[in-house]
Amino acid sequence: MSDQPSAENADIRQRRVPDSPESLKAPERDDVRPTSDESDMDAVLQDEDRMERLTRAIPQDKGSLGEFADSMLEALPPRWRNWVVRGLFTIIMISTFTFIVNRGATWLMFLNFLHFLVAYHRLVSFALYCIGFVSFVLSLRKGYYMRQFSLFAWTHLTLLLIVSQSFFIIQNIFQGLIWFLAPVAMIICCDVMSYMFGFFWGKTPLIKLSPKKTWEGFIGGAFSTVIFGILLSLALYNRPFFVCPVQHYQTDSSNCTIPLAFQLQDYPVPRPFSFFFKILRKEPVIQLFPFVFHSIALSLFASILGPFGGFFASGFKRAFKIKDFGDVIPGHGGLMDRFDCQLLMGTFVMVYIHSFIRVPDASKLVKQIMTLEPLEQLDIYNLLQNELSKNGLL
Amino acid sequence: MSDQPSAENADIRQRRVPDSPESLKAPERDDVRPTSDESDMDAVLQDEDRMERLTRAIPQDKGSLGEFADSMLEALPPRWRNWVVRGLFTIIMISTFTFIVNRGATWLMFLNFLHFLVAYHRLVSFALYCIGFVSFVLSLRKGYYMRQFSLFAWTHLTLLLIVSQSFFIIQNIFQGLIWFLAPVAMIICCDVMSYMFGFFWGKTPLIKLSPKKTWEGFIGGAFSTVIFGILLSLALYNRPFFVCPVQHYQTDSSNCTIPLAFQLQDYPVPRPFSFFFKILRKEPVIQLFPFVFHSIALSLFASILGPFGGFFASGFKRAFKIKDFGDVIPGHGGLMDRFDCQLLMGTFVMVYIHSFIRVPDASKLVKQIMTLEPLEQLDIYNLLQNELSKNGLL
Repeated sequence: MSDQPSAENADIRQRRVPDSPESLKAPERDDVRPTSDESDMDAVLQDEDRMERLTRAIPQDKGSLGEFADSMLEALPPRWRNWVVRGLFTIIMISTFTFIVNRGATWLMFLNFLHFLVAYHRLVSFALYCIGFVSFVLSLRKGYYMRQFSLFAWTHLTLLLIVSQSFFIIQNIFQGLIWFLAPVAMIICCDVMSYMFGFFWGKTPLIKLSPKKTWEGFIGGAFSTVIFGILLSLALYNRPFFVCPVQHYQTDSSNCTIPLAFQLQDYPVPRPFSFFFKILRKEPVIQLFPFVFHSIALSLFASILGPFGGFFASGFKRAFKIKDFGDVIPGHGGLMDRFDCQLLMGTFVMVYIHSFIRVPDASKLVKQIMTLEPLEQLDIYNLLQNELSKNGLL
Repeated sequence: MSDQPSAENADIRQRRVPDSPESLKAPERDDVRPTSDESDMDAVLQDEDRMERLTRAIPQDKGSLGEFADSMLEALPPRWRNWVVRGLFTIIMISTFTFIVNRGATWLMFLNFLHFLVAYHRLVSFALYCIGFVSFVLSLRKGYYMRQFSLFAWTHLTLLLIVSQSFFIIQNIFQGLIWFLAPVAMIICCDVMSYMFGFFWGKTPLIKLSPKKTWEGFIGGAFSTVIFGILLSLALYNRPFFVCPVQHYQTDSSNCTIPLAFQLQDYPVPRPFSFFFKILRKEPVIQLFPFVFHSIALSLFASILGPFGGFFASGFKRAFKIKDFGDVIPGHGGLMDRFDCQLLMGTFVMVYIHSFIRVPDASKLVKQIMTLEPLEQLDIYNLLQNELSKNGLL
């Protein structure tokens, strides 16, 4: 199916099968000890060659489903063949994702598996980092400095991306499963709907980096994502499994008071629309929960900034002259090809929660108070007593 | 004074004065639009040339104090000339640092200046980052991908270093000025004492990267730093100005209960030494505060891991074929040349505090409780009441 004509492939060089397994190995260097830093230049040239040979070995997605299925699909025009393969695996992936989410937050976080690390995880990670840092410094070899420091920079960029995203996503899950589920689902929706809108109505190219992306897809995707976000929050807002912070879910979910963001409140209807309410002889008031508005903010971010994660990945792939990051998912490419739009989303949700939600966790707070000195505990108790009697709760 | 012979200069190429101001400008490229990604290779070559020309323009420290002072110092042997210049500016820098620290934490953090950012600083920073990210993606130009992504990686490494270090250092200051002052002073002490020990007794080279560093300097520095750390903590442990968390300092420092780490406690003397106490007919118990032990941990880190920050910087400078990062401080080089050993210290202190100190802040906790819903506030109140009556405080 690699004969399928596609603009995206146009300027990606024809890939050859590596000549022999040896060609993938780094050239042996121990016998070529350079005598001065001047040889950095040669090193750069050799590096480029080597990179070419190495990237050539990354398997590329051919959208093939094996001989039998391929022969079944041969009747279709190439454009539709990709549509079917891609669609099929989209459904498979979304089903798997839904299944995993339904197993609960614990599965998602492998909490039990990592439990022994909770108390000193910072110290352990930092110690490991220090070992890496010291090894790096000790491994520095004259004549290779520039190359080694470039690798150092790339490693840190990768670490920054993976570590910070995972960290923020887990933080978000702690606030309630919905803070993980909704953003991820929005990005998936935006991906799928942009592809659909682009496939059927796409005409105007959006950006040179990804020639297949169109304005029609971009706008259609954004519009669908906002609608999808609202529907999703309406479906989930009264289910404690999704909206309660994880602590409650683990111990006793019946114990959880639904967070404010998911409690129904009266919102006055804006003037132009209150007319309809007058006809129906109703109060011009609508019952909603704040998360609906949050979901609009999240889906706008997902559909406007998310694609830039995709463009970024496209550019990155072009820099290394590959078409996909791998070939694990037929029609889609590698795993990273499916996650590129998720890049900034985890960070955005974390920032959003900290700026606009900020629900400190009651049980966490109690634990923290208990680590204080007795006198300070007493101070807090008195302050709290004052405040509560002021509000008539005591 | 640049004729001074030094091992460190030996393999750094002789630097020429740039031929003309034009040679520093980037070559104009708009007329050289490459037609395919193949030209990435040419771009890399041109980049190397350009980097050479650009780094050549970084001013290098010559250890000069102006003509008059230079002529005064001419009588000294070159080795001692550097000693005097370096020593003089070490004293100037330490005095300035001490002065600033004595002005208090507020000066150090420019808190008032940044106050308007406190509530939404995450959102503001993230929005600015997103603008940068989108601009980067939009600026991607065919034929320059590899170079642009390398710049992206370097920018992130730099950001990671500067932003995370500053953030952690400010967090540490909030725990009490001593958590900033002691580590920084330890690194300075280690720097100075390693130089002194190395200058007078240094013989055995330590690492190829920095040929001037010796084992004698390394061990002497470490030893002095541990002693210095203990003396410093003995000098500061009972001064609320240094040991109280910043919140108290700002509002009312007389209000602060000295944190546990600085309260005197009885420690049993280890067996081998209890003999002396028996002779003196005293209890084999010594009064100390936990911070003394913390200071030993901190100074060991400062003197063992700190130098690796310096080696890292040496390697980095070699990769770009420069001797110093600048020439702001005669005898020392640029500002970064003086900060290189501080690289990992801020992070270590943050990790250390979170792993072993963890003093939640009482006033912060009350504020957080007040943002909770009334029912949850009541829950916390009742829990606290139970706990306090159990301990006989109510």
